[in-house]
Amino acid sequence: MDTITKELGKRIQELRKEKTGLSQEKFALEIEMDRSYFASVESGRRNISIVNIKKIADGLGVSLSELFEGV
Amino acid sequence: MDTITKELGKRIQELRKEKTGLSQEKFALEIEMDRSYFASVESGRRNISIVNIKKIADGLGVSLSELFEGV
Repeated sequence: MDTITKELGKRIQELRKEKTGLSQEKFALEIEMDRSYFASVESGRRNISIVNIKKIADGLGVSLSELFEGV
Repeated sequence: MDTITKELGKRIQELRKEKTGLSQEKFALEIEMDRSYFASVESGRRNISIVNIKKIADGLGVSLSELFEGV
């Protein structure tokens, strides 16, 4: 898919490790998101919508502006 | 719809006026987005996806991080 989905996925993965230390699976569980859906977001295969982006940002404890830094 | 879609719509509207001075219609035309779709984004009635958010940010000449400032 588009470069932007890949870049965002990488950024989410980086922040998940850095901010939470949780596995993909545990983080997905914590934010009540389907784990295979979340995995596909991190790998850049989803054109994720703003409502789900916000859910992830909240779970990471970052603002949307911070989430998109460098993206 | 969700608060986040409303907040983002308001921010997009604000930046469109400030950065481009274009009407909704002209801006939508410029970024090749359906004008009624774009109008519904600004009014917060769409759960817009990242690919379209990026398209709008590019048209506004701002980074995604800047687009989400204060949202």
